[in-house]
Amino acid sequence: MTRVDGRNFDEIRPVTITRNYTKYAHGSVLIEMGETKVICTATIEDKVPPFLKNTGKGWVTAEYSMLPASTQIRKIRESSRGKVEGRTQEIQRLIGRALRSVIDLDAIGERTIWLDCDVIQADGGTRTASITGSFIALIDALNHLKSIGQIKKFPIKNYISAISVGVVGEKPLLDLCYKEDSTAKVDMNIVMTDQGEFVEVQGTGEEAPFSRKDLLELLRLGELGNQQLVKLQKEALGELAAEIGRREE
Amino acid sequence: MTRVDGRNFDEIRPVTITRNYTKYAHGSVLIEMGETKVICTATIEDKVPPFLKNTGKGWVTAEYSMLPASTQIRKIRESSRGKVEGRTQEIQRLIGRALRSVIDLDAIGERTIWLDCDVIQADGGTRTASITGSFIALIDALNHLKSIGQIKKFPIKNYISAISVGVVGEKPLLDLCYKEDSTAKVDMNIVMTDQGEFVEVQGTGEEAPFSRKDLLELLRLGELGNQQLVKLQKEALGELAAEIGRREE
Amino acid sequence: MTRVDGRNFDEIRPVTITRNYTKYAHGSVLIEMGETKVICTATIEDKVPPFLKNTGKGWVTAEYSMLPASTQIRKIRESSRGKVEGRTQEIQRLIGRALRSVIDLDAIGERTIWLDCDVIQADGGTRTASITGSFIALIDALNHLKSIGQIKKFPIKNYISAISVGVVGEKPLLDLCYKEDSTAKVDMNIVMTDQGEFVEVQGTGEEAPFSRKDLLELLRLGELGNQQLVKLQKEALGELAAEIGRREE
Amino acid sequence: MTRVDGRNFDEIRPVTITRNYTKYAHGSVLIEMGETKVICTATIEDKVPPFLKNTGKGWVTAEYSMLPASTQIRKIRESSRGKVEGRTQEIQRLIGRALRSVIDLDAIGERTIWLDCDVIQADGGTRTASITGSFIALIDALNHLKSIGQIKKFPIKNYISAISVGVVGEKPLLDLCYKEDSTAKVDMNIVMTDQGEFVEVQGTGEEAPFSRKDLLELLRLGELGNQQLVKLQKEALGELAAEIGRREE
Amino acid sequence: MTRVDGRNFDEIRPVTITRNYTKYAHGSVLIEMGETKVICTATIEDKVPPFLKNTGKGWVTAEYSMLPASTQIRKIRESSRGKVEGRTQEIQRLIGRALRSVIDLDAIGERTIWLDCDVIQADGGTRTASITGSFIALIDALNHLKSIGQIKKFPIKNYISAISVGVVGEKPLLDLCYKEDSTAKVDMNIVMTDQGEFVEVQGTGEEAPFSRKDLLELLRLGELGNQQLVKLQKEALGELAAEIGRREE
Amino acid sequence: MTRVDGRNFDEIRPVTITRNYTKYAHGSVLIEMGETKVICTATIEDKVPPFLKNTGKGWVTAEYSMLPASTQIRKIRESSRGKVEGRTQEIQRLIGRALRSVIDLDAIGERTIWLDCDVIQADGGTRTASITGSFIALIDALNHLKSIGQIKKFPIKNYISAISVGVVGEKPLLDLCYKEDSTAKVDMNIVMTDQGEFVEVQGTGEEAPFSRKDLLELLRLGELGNQQLVKLQKEALGELAAEIGRREE
Repeated sequence: MTRVDGRNFDEIRPVTITRNYTKYAHGSVLIEMGETKVICTATIEDKVPPFLKNTGKGWVTAEYSMLPASTQIRKIRESSRGKVEGRTQEIQRLIGRALRSVIDLDAIGERTIWLDCDVIQADGGTRTASITGSFIALIDALNHLKSIGQIKKFPIKNYISAISVGVVGEKPLLDLCYKEDSTAKVDMNIVMTDQGEFVEVQGTGEEAPFSRKDLLELLRLGELGNQQLVKLQKEALGELAAEIGRREE
Repeated sequence: MTRVDGRNFDEIRPVTITRNYTKYAHGSVLIEMGETKVICTATIEDKVPPFLKNTGKGWVTAEYSMLPASTQIRKIRESSRGKVEGRTQEIQRLIGRALRSVIDLDAIGERTIWLDCDVIQADGGTRTASITGSFIALIDALNHLKSIGQIKKFPIKNYISAISVGVVGEKPLLDLCYKEDSTAKVDMNIVMTDQGEFVEVQGTGEEAPFSRKDLLELLRLGELGNQQLVKLQKEALGELAAEIGRREE
Repeated sequence: MTRVDGRNFDEIRPVTITRNYTKYAHGSVLIEMGETKVICTATIEDKVPPFLKNTGKGWVTAEYSMLPASTQIRKIRESSRGKVEGRTQEIQRLIGRALRSVIDLDAIGERTIWLDCDVIQADGGTRTASITGSFIALIDALNHLKSIGQIKKFPIKNYISAISVGVVGEKPLLDLCYKEDSTAKVDMNIVMTDQGEFVEVQGTGEEAPFSRKDLLELLRLGELGNQQLVKLQKEALGELAAEIGRREE
Repeated sequence: MTRVDGRNFDEIRPVTITRNYTKYAHGSVLIEMGETKVICTATIEDKVPPFLKNTGKGWVTAEYSMLPASTQIRKIRESSRGKVEGRTQEIQRLIGRALRSVIDLDAIGERTIWLDCDVIQADGGTRTASITGSFIALIDALNHLKSIGQIKKFPIKNYISAISVGVVGEKPLLDLCYKEDSTAKVDMNIVMTDQGEFVEVQGTGEEAPFSRKDLLELLRLGELGNQQLVKLQKEALGELAAEIGRREE
Repeated sequence: MTRVDGRNFDEIRPVTITRNYTKYAHGSVLIEMGETKVICTATIEDKVPPFLKNTGKGWVTAEYSMLPASTQIRKIRESSRGKVEGRTQEIQRLIGRALRSVIDLDAIGERTIWLDCDVIQADGGTRTASITGSFIALIDALNHLKSIGQIKKFPIKNYISAISVGVVGEKPLLDLCYKEDSTAKVDMNIVMTDQGEFVEVQGTGEEAPFSRKDLLELLRLGELGNQQLVKLQKEALGELAAEIGRREE
Repeated sequence: MTRVDGRNFDEIRPVTITRNYTKYAHGSVLIEMGETKVICTATIEDKVPPFLKNTGKGWVTAEYSMLPASTQIRKIRESSRGKVEGRTQEIQRLIGRALRSVIDLDAIGERTIWLDCDVIQADGGTRTASITGSFIALIDALNHLKSIGQIKKFPIKNYISAISVGVVGEKPLLDLCYKEDSTAKVDMNIVMTDQGEFVEVQGTGEEAPFSRKDLLELLRLGELGNQQLVKLQKEALGELAAEIGRREE
């Protein structure tokens, strides 16, 4: 069986990571996974939410949005509706949680780093691409803090990346495009560190429940995909990758 | 090591399921898991959301709310804030998705079944208790439809129940109470059918990532807990359980 | 003429007051008047609204909500609508005003006591039951303040209770159930102290205006009902009733 | 004792009723009670709320608002806040209920009559002035319907007017101005028909409860005030008064 | 060609400016331009928006609203909709900007002057009438500051007034009434100082684009109209006009 | 005097127009004017707003938004605030009005064409770039309608483009970048057709009023800039330009 776009079941789509995509944010990345395109920016703000005031600790939070024309049917703008949808909130909570899990919030001081993930074109996997891309934007923002002497080294415990997997027909597949995703019986997002550990595992079988065996195969594919993504992240970071690599010394 | 409330690591809290808790809803259940208490009602409405109009298909959807005094610190009412929090939306999406996965929406006709989960007292595991309790309320509502001749048999594919598991200290535990949950390094909600298959697996390691070994142990505990919950659901349903059991004939 | 539920025209429904209904609030009461069931909790918060800051004075405020399945037709959740209805606001303003009229706000210090009235099942008279039940929850919360040494004695001027009366057909009736209420020509809520004085009198003749004679008979029935409610409140408070009784010495 | 503005305890303020105050509404009245000034308009719309569709019945509803500069301290505009306050909702519900009680909704067909009460200057008694003025605007709107042949006669059962009374110091007073209202121990609004019957009685003793004796004296003053208001309404209506007078024949 | 109301193409409607129209605001003006009637009030508040805190500088801001019955078809109240329309926001931004352009914000200290423009009756040109009337209300509010010794002289650089012009048929006209405005091919609002300079020029050709020649003729008419308005403003201000006239000395 | 970026006073920034920038919208354009970058998409929807139902007429409307990181200081997302700012509403009204002025709405049938302008990077002139870019996206969407046989020819009366001009220091300048815009005394947006006629002229002198002479010079610069933009639009449209050119035959 070949997939709709000719890939193998365990193959990810071509990935492009463009740093410094726009000029004002402290980190600005365009991540493309096949036809999915997301702008991920990281902006540093010199204040924290009320619950962290005077704790010396920082915060990392994410916002996610899709341009109205990023999908096949135009999406109504959430600002026009006057409220943020449940799906959006779920995604931005996921992105924020994922990124917070790899950063030492004590080390950045009383600052908030805003990760804005704006989907320019959506062809499946926008939330996982947002995590993978935001990690790079975050590193660039931290590099800015480092360059102005606010931090000494990268307060980063691990790389983090994310990929979707799912069961389409009876077949577990890696990195679903929209066409696959919309017919998947099981859909799972897997967020991992470069150490091969899990940060989030979110699997849903709305069409049909799934067995332990399926689950294990999906986890294996997710591991495979995330290994490749981390490799691509390192390439994209170039010299910075080496610096982050020295984080534990 | 014993747990804060003296349980074994693989022991669930005492569960009480009270049917017909209030009198107007078509199904009305009070579920208690230890000190966690949730009223789950199912109400049938003779219309469907716009996207299902004239499809002959029904819908199941859930709403979740906590009474202000259900938690240790009084929670601001979402109606006063004027908006539903991200966490609430995530939970009601989860409950709805879970219940929809076991019902044949074609069989109930153009009707919506509303599952309202109102937390009276929260001591951890309110979302999973909501799923377990809502299943019983849903059966009672379907029984009402059956009794008035609108459906012939229960359009139910499986029982569904849910339990939380997590890693506290270094120890995987089943059915976390609030005290355990608030210090857990890994937190996972597992929704399963009575056939031992997974409907949702949502694991988060915000404090620390988790290994494949941890993940497998958590899944095993989840299976254990859900087996017991299904048994309790069957007891609570009494004679109805036998009827649902004949569903596949 | 007998009433729909067999009562005399001047008879109230059976009343049950359960204290300590839930465990986190400082006062937590389930009040049942016939089939009407309301959870009334009192929670103490160590701050006051802006207009009372640095005055040394406290505040008592109420919120009221009906569970979606508390009524015969499922009520849309106000948090989903994104706004609190006029009826709800009117009721919570009434409850707050009533309770504030019997407490010495100077004596409780810069604290807010939140009274949350959540209707579990609605069969008429939910706002009056909320007042009667909230008074008990308020006493329990004050007792908590007393037990931790924050106040010396109960800063309570009077007991307060409330009951509905109305004209159904041509007949003035005490304590209307929903069936009566929905056909009443005149509808009145009467809030009184244990000294037999009025705190609120709200009478409406939407169907038909009412004479001074009707009004006087309705007031008489309201006095009758409230006398019984205060008696039941005293029984429910047990030993605390004696302490409050010594308030004026 | 004389009052702040020199009136007797049972004297109302000078009242001016100006009809046709603006030109687009079907009825448009400026009512002035002392320094309180309210524009009351009645506009006929050829549709009804959903719950009345296809019933042949009409609806009367009210909206109330205060101009920001109508009060001593500038009031924030409710459109800027994005929500209508509880007080406003209470008042517009009261006005609507009052006017609906004297009109035959079946007779006006499937139409909504909107009563808009906009307070230009507030010196106490704005809600009661709104009711008294809206009655005149309503009659003018009905007269419009009559003049274009949509109704044959005035579908009006009674005149309706309203006045505030209260206890200031120990003294019951009629028609409180703001200075009196802000120090009143008991505050009551009394809505009556020209037949001397009550439509609404809303009395509140937030500062102190009130006795039956006080209540009776306040009712007496309210009757006195409303009798004078009806007389002024009749004068303002001129020839139309005669026509309405023939309503019962 | 004569116009719908018999005016010449370069003639403005009769203007009446009534000062002290209501009693609480520091400035309160009713401006009537033909059948268009707007209440413009100026209220001084002793604080500034956050971006001006501790700058020693003041602020002038405007709010604009139409009474529901001010137009031929009843307008839904923006407070009921829960949001302020785009058109309203555009108008209040325009009014605020215009008035700020002629006042020295440094001279009024950390105060906000609120200009509230409430349209009682709308017959075209409400936004321009609001500007012309607000200028007078602003002067009265400044006079209040002066009378209590908070400022020494009027911190006013110029008079400001505004008028609408437009092309109806092929004919440029001054001061459009609603009937003209609704059929205009080009519509322009011109805000000017008494020195004959422009503060805002907003021209729109939604029906058809307009030539440079049309534009010049419209500007000429706008100059003509504003010259007359400033003259009327000076008359309305009486003795104050002389004081403002001495501003530049 | 040279400008901050070395341009002459009457020189526009380098313009790049990229068609088919994303794949789902019927028209999708990235327009870059110097460092200002806006994605303009046009999406056709087969329905119209209520006021156009059953008129056979279509509608063109615009929405405008800035990515949070598009500006030097991160902008709070309007969906998070829950409301669309006045500035945004003003801009989207302007864009919609401008595009509607050059299209024959009768010719497109009961369809809405949504123009979404999302600013990726903002360096002044985002609203004018949005108009210029949207025109191209609109043509591509119309070309789609033409290619599927829904329209025979382009229902376009004119090309439309827009440019900002302003007075910085004492000097009128064409096409202000952000640095110039933020210090401009007069700021004007000029929307024109390719026939050299005006569609919108919006000039504001918040810092200082401007003379007729300044106004004329600014109009001249606007004409100059728009002539160049139309030329660039024609180049970008390539073969389509020829087809539109034949519109009047």
